[in-house]
Amino acid sequence: MLAKVYVTLKPGVLDPQGKAVRSSLASLGFLGVEDVRLGKYVELRLAETDPGRARAEVERMCERLLANTVIESYRVEVS
Amino acid sequence: MLAKVYVTLKPGVLDPQGKAVRSSLASLGFLGVEDVRLGKYVELRLAETDPGRARAEVERMCERLLANTVIESYRVEVS
Repeated sequence: MLAKVYVTLKPGVLDPQGKAVRSSLASLGFLGVEDVRLGKYVELRLAETDPGRARAEVERMCERLLANTVIESYRVEVS
Repeated sequence: MLAKVYVTLKPGVLDPQGKAVRSSLASLGFLGVEDVRLGKYVELRLAETDPGRARAEVERMCERLLANTVIESYRVEVS
């Protein structure tokens, strides 16, 4: 199965990298950008064939390694 | 408007960071992971209110800054 994981900073957590991207965009002439937030996107190909078990396994991977759950949240899609 | 951008490595481009994540997952006991590919996820809040113009502007941002189109592809969602 293919699992897609989206890791984003929780609301309220400062995102200096996003601010840097916003300011780079402004210096390129893109002045209509009010805010930029950066996150991670992870694709995993799994041997598991049961969608429910695959999702549960990927959620454990997020908790252990892929996301820092103090400051980040994650969303898992399995297909 | 809110734009979501997914930047991924093109097929065939080596992903050493993904390989490192896969091996870290294996060392944590997640042995059923066949492949990992890492990408970027960018959320942009735009002043633009027309969906078509917003998408076109974000695609220009991808070409200029957000993606390295030699090795990466991108997908834009506007809502």
